[in-house]
Amino acid sequence: MTTLACPVPATARDTILLGHGSGGRMTADLIATTFLPALSNPLLDALGDSAVLRLGSVRLAFTTDSFVVSPRRFPGGDLGSLAVHGTVNDLAVSGAQPLALAAAFILEEGFPLAELRALVASMRDAARAAGVPVATADTKVVEHGKGDGLYVTTSGIGIVPEGVELAPARMRSGDAILVSGPIGDHGIAVLSVREGLAFEGDVASDSAPLHGLVADLLASGAAVRCMRDPTRGGVATVLNELARAGGVGLAIEERAVPVRASVRAACEVLGLDPLYVACEGRLLAVVAEADGARALAALQAHPLGTGAARIGSVVPPGGPPVTLTTLFGTARALDVLTGAQLPRIC
Amino acid sequence: MTTLACPVPATARDTILLGHGSGGRMTADLIATTFLPALSNPLLDALGDSAVLRLGSVRLAFTTDSFVVSPRRFPGGDLGSLAVHGTVNDLAVSGAQPLALAAAFILEEGFPLAELRALVASMRDAARAAGVPVATADTKVVEHGKGDGLYVTTSGIGIVPEGVELAPARMRSGDAILVSGPIGDHGIAVLSVREGLAFEGDVASDSAPLHGLVADLLASGAAVRCMRDPTRGGVATVLNELARAGGVGLAIEERAVPVRASVRAACEVLGLDPLYVACEGRLLAVVAEADGARALAALQAHPLGTGAARIGSVVPPGGPPVTLTTLFGTARALDVLTGAQLPRIC
Repeated sequence: MTTLACPVPATARDTILLGHGSGGRMTADLIATTFLPALSNPLLDALGDSAVLRLGSVRLAFTTDSFVVSPRRFPGGDLGSLAVHGTVNDLAVSGAQPLALAAAFILEEGFPLAELRALVASMRDAARAAGVPVATADTKVVEHGKGDGLYVTTSGIGIVPEGVELAPARMRSGDAILVSGPIGDHGIAVLSVREGLAFEGDVASDSAPLHGLVADLLASGAAVRCMRDPTRGGVATVLNELARAGGVGLAIEERAVPVRASVRAACEVLGLDPLYVACEGRLLAVVAEADGARALAALQAHPLGTGAARIGSVVPPGGPPVTLTTLFGTARALDVLTGAQLPRIC
Repeated sequence: MTTLACPVPATARDTILLGHGSGGRMTADLIATTFLPALSNPLLDALGDSAVLRLGSVRLAFTTDSFVVSPRRFPGGDLGSLAVHGTVNDLAVSGAQPLALAAAFILEEGFPLAELRALVASMRDAARAAGVPVATADTKVVEHGKGDGLYVTTSGIGIVPEGVELAPARMRSGDAILVSGPIGDHGIAVLSVREGLAFEGDVASDSAPLHGLVADLLASGAAVRCMRDPTRGGVATVLNELARAGGVGLAIEERAVPVRASVRAACEVLGLDPLYVACEGRLLAVVAEADGARALAALQAHPLGTGAARIGSVVPPGGPPVTLTTLFGTARALDVLTGAQLPRIC
């Protein structure tokens, strides 16, 4: 008989903790134990960034996300623009060109109308720049102390063009793993404001709509296997999800992963690993080995992909889902995010 | 120069108040002054319960609603079932048969997992009964004190069958106004729990999915002009919105409006008018005069429409948008809900 020195406290098993919103292991556990068993169906079970439904000859992508980022304003964006970009990107990485957004506002009593107007204007600007209308909306109000100013839930629909076939199961050994630019900017930008930290060199969020970049990548003719945007949980967590879903290994070269010096410095101060810090305007794409260079060139030719890089390759299964070759040349398993690294990052 | 005896306090003009969530005049003002000017586009400007987009030969309805009802459980339903029914009904009254739902959960730190599981099970049962899958979902967690246990935002997509053409502008003088059953049950059921009141005769929410009832009504062959579900703001507010949108008058006979004795008694105690109390499973439909009896028979033949009644007629414009002939035979204008009659009713 074994006695556990550190038993899990009852509250950690019985109630929602901040870590359940991290996008990492606790979020995955909550989904696996609470949501999937009840709501299971083939569309939901796919756990894609969007559900893709067939309507006659049309494939429709459908997605939803609540945005609770704190603070609501950060260098490079705000809750309004993030709510547009986040949903556009969930459609984009499913291969869909966005068609329309829906926006549902949960307002806290006492929230200043001037700030609401500024955030709605920011949504308008982001939606206009992305070329996607907010087609339908809802507003609810909760009492003071039952919210935090403003939460916005955006949902989106889009069309997956004919010929676009994306799925983790399409990955093959040797495929190239690309990222469209330096990682971790969004998380560090939000954290710098939240904690009142001044980092050397300003870090602005990378929040941006990725559907144009995705369209250029697909138009390059490269055989794209699957795509994701590495938001909560960061690149490391999303790579793990892809590897498990595709039944392959992913081998990443740490020296190849683009990280701004300012983000790296901030991460060192804060004890964070940039591989776990959220992006909101970066694309992870897996493409056929032979098309790696062409796909990278297509990304680099787009204003949102100038910093694109190849960061690794698909390898046969058998080892850890994701292996990182570190700057020191040693290889180690790269696991999903555990705990609550950065609550309310999106 | 005039001095206002009761100037509007600065806070009422500058911040969000509970009344902004009432579904009545303040909600309409907030939409008109803050959301529409920024986000304006033909889909949003139509202000329907769903946006209807054309995709080739298919018309797709798209809608979203946040659910913040307090308490989360009430006779006849809970936040989970309500979140399914509310969105199914927004699709149904747009003439659409629902195709899929999306659900976004904002969880408060400390929320009991057991209650979350019960509410998700209730969503599952409601979605199953309605025959609509939850195709995609999201979870976010906010700190204790920044939420109220659980808020759920459901979005929905559906297909509007060929030949179904609904719009307030299609209403004509003489058209029959039908309601599918007794009104105000949902609002009184929620209020009875919130206030710890025991009313004579149990009042249960009417929360139910209306797409089957709508399909039967449309299949009857009656010329249906437009439909709405009278949720926040109640029948009176929704009739006003229809009248203004259609450029017609609506004449309602109070004696013809079905209200349960228990709801009427509760409203008398509470100083509420049932015409302003929310329903979550009732249909308001305007049909061609010649088809009034046929449409009413179609509603009454469905389990959710056994209490259906004709409550009035469309009349030429010129008078108040909605006129009520009271039980005493006098006629008066029936205005939209003002203030915050029942906050967090849905």
